[in-house]
Amino acid sequence: MFGLTILGNNSALPAHDRHPTAQLLTTPEHLLLFDCGEGTQMQLARYKIRRSKINYIFISHLHGDHYFGLPGLLNSMGLQGRTQELHLFIPEKLKAILDLQFEAANAVLPFKIHYHFLAEEGLLLDEKKFKVSCFKVQHRIECWGFLFTEKKHPRKILPDECIQYDIPAAFYERLQHGEDFTNKEGELIKNEWVTKAATLPKSYAYSADTIYDESLADVVKDVHLLFHETTYLQDEEERAAARFHSTTKQAAMIARKANVKRLLIGHFSSRYDVLDEFEKEAKEVFENCELAIEGVTYLL
Amino acid sequence: MFGLTILGNNSALPAHDRHPTAQLLTTPEHLLLFDCGEGTQMQLARYKIRRSKINYIFISHLHGDHYFGLPGLLNSMGLQGRTQELHLFIPEKLKAILDLQFEAANAVLPFKIHYHFLAEEGLLLDEKKFKVSCFKVQHRIECWGFLFTEKKHPRKILPDECIQYDIPAAFYERLQHGEDFTNKEGELIKNEWVTKAATLPKSYAYSADTIYDESLADVVKDVHLLFHETTYLQDEEERAAARFHSTTKQAAMIARKANVKRLLIGHFSSRYDVLDEFEKEAKEVFENCELAIEGVTYLL
Repeated sequence: MFGLTILGNNSALPAHDRHPTAQLLTTPEHLLLFDCGEGTQMQLARYKIRRSKINYIFISHLHGDHYFGLPGLLNSMGLQGRTQELHLFIPEKLKAILDLQFEAANAVLPFKIHYHFLAEEGLLLDEKKFKVSCFKVQHRIECWGFLFTEKKHPRKILPDECIQYDIPAAFYERLQHGEDFTNKEGELIKNEWVTKAATLPKSYAYSADTIYDESLADVVKDVHLLFHETTYLQDEEERAAARFHSTTKQAAMIARKANVKRLLIGHFSSRYDVLDEFEKEAKEVFENCELAIEGVTYLL
Repeated sequence: MFGLTILGNNSALPAHDRHPTAQLLTTPEHLLLFDCGEGTQMQLARYKIRRSKINYIFISHLHGDHYFGLPGLLNSMGLQGRTQELHLFIPEKLKAILDLQFEAANAVLPFKIHYHFLAEEGLLLDEKKFKVSCFKVQHRIECWGFLFTEKKHPRKILPDECIQYDIPAAFYERLQHGEDFTNKEGELIKNEWVTKAATLPKSYAYSADTIYDESLADVVKDVHLLFHETTYLQDEEERAAARFHSTTKQAAMIARKANVKRLLIGHFSSRYDVLDEFEKEAKEVFENCELAIEGVTYLL
């Protein structure tokens, strides 16, 4: 089971008790943090998520509302005595900032950080059950989106059929990976007679801060869940473009074009206190759309 | 009227819905911010304090829990269209950190920042009605305390007496500053016959993060309000010393030795959920003591 918990759904200027961007992706073995705006560690505490369990942190770009909470989170991990290694996937310049901060505090963290700099599109992390890759998005400064994909599930064994065809249990793992079986008599037992397809691997795309960009639809094609920013309502299309942000309908058009299963919208401008209109406008273009609400976990 | 509002009363690791250090001093004309831990801008919003009204910010030292909220606060001031100049009184290394952050974000603030680096003890700010000076405290890294003092009030004119002695109104301002008056007949009218002393100027000392250091008592002598950290209860005296922090009784001993009017204690370790014991222990040594509680304003 995978779940995406929203820790911050606001754009740069915190308001209306909404916070800058941070999202936590929970997998059965790992917690992955996407962006880490100011106050993320307090939001983790508020929602009773253990910061010690986070092993991978991804930072999309170096506007402060996407990373000003990172130094504090790292410090707190250190104060809590963390020894587990931590992987940071970040724009390279962020390391220089962190280094200066550690130096100024005369601080040495008690755990090792592995720095992975975002330089090329493609695979970032290849874990046992999932992988994460990055892709470029169009924003005012260099900015990266992230694509999480569960690895292909093994096919499911049909025990009765396997027994009927007299397939030894030692061969089951090869069946799960799609192989056919040939018995002693030289007869071919087709894989699909004795197994069934597994559920489709889950996927999540976070397209960070981005101007409306149709080419994004190819990158996030068919994902289960797409988070697309909607800093503004549709009537602010010009303002959105000028600031390299997107509107409700633009996000929904990407979702429709990409044929995603479900769209989550957020990164709301502080000019909006009430958010209902965001959902309404986006749904006019793409029905399966929800507001990203802080503290809510959206299952993939 | 002067008031000190506590925005964060916790030590480095945020816990129990307590926040890292930040204090706001309100004067009739100005808001002064002392330290700016992560989330300070959200705390300002929570307590309905307008960040735009802050013109002076003082940072005691470069442990993150005392400044990680500063970049976000500056950004937000910029996003709100601030044009008013801002004065930062900070350790010099902080400027390099801020510069890197602005550069990485390709951001130019729409207001001018005047940087004042903390280098020598003494006067930092000389405003019309108050001044602020800094003094060194003993902590794990270079650390500064701040002393706010209202300027001496002019003496109060006694109108009946002035008329009786036939003093021209044009001379009243000189009377207020303590001068005697000599009339046409050459008679000396002593100042104290026609004026009375004004109320004592208010003062506030913030001694930041500090180990127990008796010499501090001279620096903060007779202040109206002293904030002294009490990271630990008295039974953790050794731990406190090892980490260059203070205990309840140590803070109270400084207050007693310095003959301050009132002691405020804070910077509580996250190991303590309930704080009653802090007040109890400190009061055993110095009666006029209060816990620094977030959102509460303590009048000078």
